Amino acid sequence: MVAIRYEHIKTCRQSGARLGKVHTPHGTFETPIFMPVGTLATVKTMSPEELKEIGSQIILSNTYHLWLRPGHDIVKEAGGLHKFMNWDRPILTDSGGFQVFSLSALRKIEEEGVHFRNHLSGEKLFLSPEGAMEIQNALGSDIMMAFDECPPYPATYEYMLKSVERTSRWAERCLEGHKRPEDQGLFGIVQGGEYEDLRKKSAEDLVSLDFPGYAVGGLSVGEPKDVMNRVLEFTTPHLPHDKPRYLMGVGSPDALIDGTIRGIDMFDCVLPTRIARNGTCMTSSGRLVVRNAKYAKDYRPLDEKCDCHVCKNYTRAYIRHLVKCDETFGFRLTSYHNLYFLLKLMEQVREAIRQDRLLDFKEEFFEMYGLNKPNAKNF
Amino acid sequence: MVAIRYEHIKTCRQSGARLGKVHTPHGTFETPIFMPVGTLATVKTMSPEELKEIGSQIILSNTYHLWLRPGHDIVKEAGGLHKFMNWDRPILTDSGGFQVFSLSALRKIEEEGVHFRNHLSGEKLFLSPEGAMEIQNALGSDIMMAFDECPPYPATYEYMLKSVERTSRWAERCLEGHKRPEDQGLFGIVQGGEYEDLRKKSAEDLVSLDFPGYAVGGLSVGEPKDVMNRVLEFTTPHLPHDKPRYLMGVGSPDALIDGTIRGIDMFDCVLPTRIARNGTCMTSSGRLVVRNAKYAKDYRPLDEKCDCHVCKNYTRAYIRHLVKCDETFGFRLTSYHNLYFLLKLMEQVREAIRQDRLLDFKEEFFEMYGLNKPNAKNF
Ligand SMILES: [Zn+2]
Ligand SMILES: [Zn+2]
Repeated sequence: MVAIRYEHIKTCRQSGARLGKVHTPHGTFETPIFMPVGTLATVKTMSPEELKEIGSQIILSNTYHLWLRPGHDIVKEAGGLHKFMNWDRPILTDSGGFQVFSLSALRKIEEEGVHFRNHLSGEKLFLSPEGAMEIQNALGSDIMMAFDECPPYPATYEYMLKSVERTSRWAERCLEGHKRPEDQGLFGIVQGGEYEDLRKKSAEDLVSLDFPGYAVGGLSVGEPKDVMNRVLEFTTPHLPHDKPRYLMGVGSPDALIDGTIRGIDMFDCVLPTRIARNGTCMTSSGRLVVRNAKYAKDYRPLDEKCDCHVCKNYTRAYIRHLVKCDETFGFRLTSYHNLYFLLKLMEQVREAIRQDRLLDFKEEFFEMYGLNKPNAKNF
Repeated sequence: MVAIRYEHIKTCRQSGARLGKVHTPHGTFETPIFMPVGTLATVKTMSPEELKEIGSQIILSNTYHLWLRPGHDIVKEAGGLHKFMNWDRPILTDSGGFQVFSLSALRKIEEEGVHFRNHLSGEKLFLSPEGAMEIQNALGSDIMMAFDECPPYPATYEYMLKSVERTSRWAERCLEGHKRPEDQGLFGIVQGGEYEDLRKKSAEDLVSLDFPGYAVGGLSVGEPKDVMNRVLEFTTPHLPHDKPRYLMGVGSPDALIDGTIRGIDMFDCVLPTRIARNGTCMTSSGRLVVRNAKYAKDYRPLDEKCDCHVCKNYTRAYIRHLVKCDETFGFRLTSYHNLYFLLKLMEQVREAIRQDRLLDFKEEFFEMYGLNKPNAKNF
């Protein structure tokens, strides 16, 4: 019995994008999908009921953060992350690798694992492939991620080659360290930066280990958009057709569409909730900074084309007032709308694949969103 | 056609407490009632749907704060406060008087009104009885409050006498300045500090002006509990039996019960939401500071006797984790539970009046809540 199974439904004849389903111990989600991020066992400002109301089928949570607070022992004792946070649909946890490499100063990478300092307390910590598995087994997520080395961008070919080789060795140790393969599926992470042969090598190494799914890591780390697209183009062909593919840390509307066209099934990003806390909204006609003075007397909804609960009941004037006053409810409203916007976008993307017209949809969406203009404001 | 009408249902034979209903342009609420406070057109952290879910029948909002942000013109243009904040049940607005006297430095009281400085910007402002009416007419609340002088505690008899006389003159000007008597009911505010004859005088002055309801002001300003109770005992007998009576700024469980016993029908306070934002909860067995370390592995609900959505779905361990991490959802959960606790308490109080056993209920509640112990921790 495997924990995670991918069901391919169809491939878009116009774009090559995939439509599918992923079956997990906590139910099934459709792909391509966007996963809201609940770093500390909560998708910031949102309740589980609201997440369901807007159509969230799976959420992500962060191993590193939960390890430090409240500690995976507490989550385990509570009956696992689903029960702890009152979320009964699928959960994916990352491996902690990205945070170890991005948040911590003074990290030291050894073959055994990584020494670094707690970004909150400065305390010395150590995380290894086995440690990352132990924590994620305690959390009980449906999809776990292998502990990989996240190289800086840009990195030299020599550095990247060594890093890819280490990530492959660590991936094997993750498979061995993973103690609950019947309850939780472990995904491998393909690295290799912008080097085509290293991506190929990394993918082949991992595919030989037969993970139930694969992520493309090391993207969305500051590289230009066309580099990301090119890397996806030469990486996804090396991944098996019958396993889901996950592009980590991507959440801008254009990148979701472009990634889907290049064969990606799963995405996550803090973007929609992070910009919401700054009063910035995603709308069908582009970016809207609701805290701007021009919305003080604007009694229209955030997005006139949106049918979410927020857009049906609240005005820009009210939301601006709340955001300006730093009122929690304002950030609830902007977060709710932004997440709805991305989940709805992915629903539209799935429908476009079903109709073999994802390239047409992209064209229409980019036009309306203003992304075809020179100097278009993205996120 | 009067905007506000009180319907007396019964008087508790054991305690003398009143059971009733208040009919307003936005529907009816039962009394005695607790009103959650939505200072800036939002009850902090809560949505209107959640307020309804926990049984809020009326909420309060603050004239002074809405005058400064977003400005009553914007609320008026939005169609009034109900529409602006998406709340279709009754709203009571205070007069701004309390904030002018408590938040502002450099205030100068003249017969015409009060000169003071904006507590945010330092800008010079002026508020008069007519101004307070104009703002509240723009907000469109169901119940408006007269603009009164809020004297310091303690104050001398001489000061209080002059203040009471001024408050009576201002009350007359409020009645004249109020331009929407068919849509909004205006309550008078009885002042007089702890002086029995001044309370009587103030009550008689105001009753002669025939307001549709009366508040007892100048309490919950730092005086001992027995002073508050004594003042209520010699004030409410001077108020008409067929009008609602409102005790401003009171929200601790014991004071709600004690006020009800002394003939009060309406209460408001920021207490339940304010302490919630500090991780402090009201429970049937007393105060619970959920951020304390001893709850780190406590997988029980906040209150084992509470049947609210929070207590049915979340543990102390989870809520403590969120509060410690400063996560919005934690404060949503503690606010929700605390408000539910007080609204449920008032429901029990109404039931006890119905059964002529409010003094027995008080005894049982105080015992369970720990309020009969010496040095009981209150709020
Ligand atoms: Zn919307
Ligand atoms: Zn509760």
